[in-house]
Amino acid sequence: MNLRVVLVEPRYEGNVGAVARSMKNFGFSDLFLVRPCDIGPFGMAMAAHAKDILESAVRVDRLEDALAGANLVVGTTGKRLGKDHHHLRLHLRVPYLTPSELAERLSDKDGTVALLLGREDWGLTNDELMICDVLVSIPTSDEYPVMNLSHAATVILYELGQVDSKLEVRLADREMLERIFERTDHLLRIINYPEHKIRYVVLMLRRIFGRAELTEREANTLLGVIKKAIWKVEGEEDQAVAPD
Amino acid sequence: MNLRVVLVEPRYEGNVGAVARSMKNFGFSDLFLVRPCDIGPFGMAMAAHAKDILESAVRVDRLEDALAGANLVVGTTGKRLGKDHHHLRLHLRVPYLTPSELAERLSDKDGTVALLLGREDWGLTNDELMICDVLVSIPTSDEYPVMNLSHAATVILYELGQVDSKLEVRLADREMLERIFERTDHLLRIINYPEHKIRYVVLMLRRIFGRAELTEREANTLLGVIKKAIWKVEGEEDQAVAPD
Repeated sequence: MNLRVVLVEPRYEGNVGAVARSMKNFGFSDLFLVRPCDIGPFGMAMAAHAKDILESAVRVDRLEDALAGANLVVGTTGKRLGKDHHHLRLHLRVPYLTPSELAERLSDKDGTVALLLGREDWGLTNDELMICDVLVSIPTSDEYPVMNLSHAATVILYELGQVDSKLEVRLADREMLERIFERTDHLLRIINYPEHKIRYVVLMLRRIFGRAELTEREANTLLGVIKKAIWKVEGEEDQAVAPD
Repeated sequence: MNLRVVLVEPRYEGNVGAVARSMKNFGFSDLFLVRPCDIGPFGMAMAAHAKDILESAVRVDRLEDALAGANLVVGTTGKRLGKDHHHLRLHLRVPYLTPSELAERLSDKDGTVALLLGREDWGLTNDELMICDVLVSIPTSDEYPVMNLSHAATVILYELGQVDSKLEVRLADREMLERIFERTDHLLRIINYPEHKIRYVVLMLRRIFGRAELTEREANTLLGVIKKAIWKVEGEEDQAVAPD
């Protein structure tokens, strides 16, 4: 899936730069600007290390020219449906997908998707929304649903960019965990923890470590700590016993 | 779940305003600023209809003052782990949750969550990361992982804003957790655990318990176990010493 970001009549250069930065953060580079504002030093500064995206952005006068070659046109809308249930308006703005639903729909698709983001004040016009194949809307608070342009872009790019960049961490294996529980059981006994509560404490630890998804390294360290404590307790006992 | 956004030494007023706007977009209002830059007309303009959040933001000099009453401290980090496998660094920055994983974890929890966002250039320092119970990192492109501060905030707020705060399990409070760590530190010392590794073990536990989101009940039980172990070790030592 190839994503093309299309900003329609953006009015503030800072927003255009900020969108470029966000695109690069999530691995996208294809930017079209329809009748944009001038982009000067502030816009460039907001782009930070994504100036190349700003510089290679394609400027067009007509929205249609920004859609050439696109397989799917996605429109963004932040406006909720009011009391006006006029049929056209209804179909224009609903139903829409959330950004995560959109990402899911596109996850197994190939082709070019044009993502349209409208003006800071008015968004996309009804005529522009008519062109869109699908709409996406970010779930926001009813009290203040109007997002900054680059923020809205960022949320959608974040969802669409969900590259698998999760750091690979090795989880502890079962044998290691069982050894931790077995040694903990032993430790509890030698510190005279109430017998009838030991099972419950070990179960509690199992649940805590389970929720935490203990890494191999953490499990190793924990086992070392527990062994050290046992050694200390039993060693002291030996010493206490030795003199007899 | 009550979310508190904590900006640590933000340098650009525009970012602070933009974060406030985003907070309001997703239904949050509790903002703390640790040693912030001055916020003038530009910052206010960026807040748009969220000026009230900026105006009621709590300014503090010490990070600790921004964490009072928080049940869980979430740190944000954009830095990936390099080849440096130093123990402390490893536990400082991994493992982390994605924003959606964090939202999922918090979905059935009650309490106050402090979300820490660091400086535009350096993020959070190692000392600040040490305080965090759990880390969140936004999956970004390896080519350019450094996000704009308000963009990063927006992505996380977007995810957390979809949380339905069902009132369910009561999380352990910070004081209880700190007591556990303090007593653990003590226990490690008296079992002769290598001095230079103690800090690292305590940090590891902080992260494990953070990811597990310890309940009040679990924290109580853990503290009891640790006290019992200390009592045993110190008691044995008294016995060992007594005969002399």
